[in-house]
Amino acid sequence: MRFEWLGCLTVGLLVLAGPPAIGEEAGRGAADGKTTDMNQASSATKVASEKRPRWAIVLHGGAGTIPRDQPQEVIQAHRAALRDAMRRGVSILDQGGTSLDAVEQVIRALEDAPMFNAGRGAVFTHAGTHELDASLMDGRTFACGAVAGVTTIRHPITAARLVMEKTRHVLLAGPGADQFADQMGLEPVPNEFFSTDFRRQQLQQAQQRERDRQQAEPLKNSALPPEDQRYGTVGCVALDRDGNLAAGTSTGGLTNKRAGRIGDSPIIGAGTYANNATCGISGTGIGEEFIRHAVAFQISALIEHGGKSLDQAAELVLKERLPPRAGGIIGIDATGNIVSRYTTDGMYRAWARSDGQQEVRIWE
Amino acid sequence: MRFEWLGCLTVGLLVLAGPPAIGEEAGRGAADGKTTDMNQASSATKVASEKRPRWAIVLHGGAGTIPRDQPQEVIQAHRAALRDAMRRGVSILDQGGTSLDAVEQVIRALEDAPMFNAGRGAVFTHAGTHELDASLMDGRTFACGAVAGVTTIRHPITAARLVMEKTRHVLLAGPGADQFADQMGLEPVPNEFFSTDFRRQQLQQAQQRERDRQQAEPLKNSALPPEDQRYGTVGCVALDRDGNLAAGTSTGGLTNKRAGRIGDSPIIGAGTYANNATCGISGTGIGEEFIRHAVAFQISALIEHGGKSLDQAAELVLKERLPPRAGGIIGIDATGNIVSRYTTDGMYRAWARSDGQQEVRIWE
Repeated sequence: MRFEWLGCLTVGLLVLAGPPAIGEEAGRGAADGKTTDMNQASSATKVASEKRPRWAIVLHGGAGTIPRDQPQEVIQAHRAALRDAMRRGVSILDQGGTSLDAVEQVIRALEDAPMFNAGRGAVFTHAGTHELDASLMDGRTFACGAVAGVTTIRHPITAARLVMEKTRHVLLAGPGADQFADQMGLEPVPNEFFSTDFRRQQLQQAQQRERDRQQAEPLKNSALPPEDQRYGTVGCVALDRDGNLAAGTSTGGLTNKRAGRIGDSPIIGAGTYANNATCGISGTGIGEEFIRHAVAFQISALIEHGGKSLDQAAELVLKERLPPRAGGIIGIDATGNIVSRYTTDGMYRAWARSDGQQEVRIWE
Repeated sequence: MRFEWLGCLTVGLLVLAGPPAIGEEAGRGAADGKTTDMNQASSATKVASEKRPRWAIVLHGGAGTIPRDQPQEVIQAHRAALRDAMRRGVSILDQGGTSLDAVEQVIRALEDAPMFNAGRGAVFTHAGTHELDASLMDGRTFACGAVAGVTTIRHPITAARLVMEKTRHVLLAGPGADQFADQMGLEPVPNEFFSTDFRRQQLQQAQQRERDRQQAEPLKNSALPPEDQRYGTVGCVALDRDGNLAAGTSTGGLTNKRAGRIGDSPIIGAGTYANNATCGISGTGIGEEFIRHAVAFQISALIEHGGKSLDQAAELVLKERLPPRAGGIIGIDATGNIVSRYTTDGMYRAWARSDGQQEVRIWE
């Protein structure tokens, strides 16, 4: 059945957007939509160059159906949050800091920004609570850490880093993970800290749809979420001056999710992967599909074993392995090429390189 | 640092054992040790043939340091449990049943066998409780399901199958997963159901070692567990007459583990993977290393993109990606070749094929 879907994907139109001049922010607001074809299967922004930049960074605030008719102030608020988070990373990398530090600090900023589904502003579970997931990986050592289903950690990405650095484990989940963060001295917040009115409305709408729909049949495996679902996961990938790649991802998961549901964000190889020899990747989308196809690792493997470029590998996985509209990825390869690619209608994202390229985008 | 380890690994001696005649059980008891070189970096048993058998199955009860001087009755009990579980799978496959059913039923049998670290007989957490993980994948559809940190489900593999078949999720963890199993009508058991005296002694010994050692420094990332650690995870891979591969894994995790620690067994791509086009894999070992290197998926990717055979891919990942003595894998490729390979001193395992090959082994 899955293979039938794929037929319609092979006709995709690839859009490559050239980099703007230094400091210029292309496509602000409404002008952002340099759309050529709304029906293309995969949209990509590729930043390539001949020589490796001293550093590079790319971040995302989720992919999905992002209405273009939103109020300008909403669009601008998202753009400003992306830009502010990016600047934190740029500042670290430009001063010779590590990609790990840049990734952690950028994601902390995005976790604090209430418009993204991570940290404060995370979506609600079916039970009306918040369960957060995050992971982080060091492409130099393959060290990695993750937390899943945490409820009282303000910055899950920092807890993931502590799992990486202070334990021999990779993944801690649930109360044990909250307790670990507490032991490590991270200040706990009440679960309501993460709540916002906007997300509460989303929960109510989702539960109404569920009541309308679920009379008929139980949720099926691989069922796509409602069309207006946005995958607000945040993530960041960075390359530092020592050539070290790092990648991280943080999320509140799916609105109205069942207690205990874990998506791809805390799964190394699915939502996050970094290997200095290939690339760093952070994904956002239908987490179950990203797990099933080991998306982040598979892109790395296609570079390592399949002779693909980062952009080719990302395109292949998003278009030929995943179902339509399943989400997007950001990545940087070992030579500093940046990619952001998605099969949804848009993805909140931004990137910068030491050679002056800098961009904040929502659509093409 | 990791790469320094690898130098000593490249001198490994590969032991290929030919299949015995139908019904013959090679190497019972002490005679089991057809050892040629105890210092080899990787041991493998490969069963190859020209044409695809009607069905094939392989299972494991964990890899690790398995003392050869154990009482004969202990060794025989392990062998009998492996054989009984295998026969359940053989019976299903031989009657035309699916590989998914065979894998689930074999793992249920191993979960019931108290000598393996899965279901009853699972190891104790640091807190003196049991937290169980399991996953299952269908190589035909890429459908998959998993549970992590469950405490009251007698057969976690069946809960994993229900996640796969009855939800749109892949991974449910903690109380939410226990609750889901309950809703699905799986009879709950008290957590003490899983307890055995043998595992309680292991916990006490581990905690004593921890007290002796941990004065000095906190546990480091990638630290290897004590030498006498056994990875008692169980798993099964099967190929049915329709050419469909399935793989599953179930475990109690690490003795004395921190609450909430999740290893590779419930992580699709790490401990379990199945793809009809390549292979099915179940792993056992230091879960963190299997996650970090996406072991099960990486073997599949090396077949798909790297032009390797199943055996070559398994050897490459175990010897060149993982640290020494990290564990083992079992697998079956699309044409019915069976492999079991490990870098520990032994692995409990058994396999059978429709062409009459049948074997139960612990060491070479």
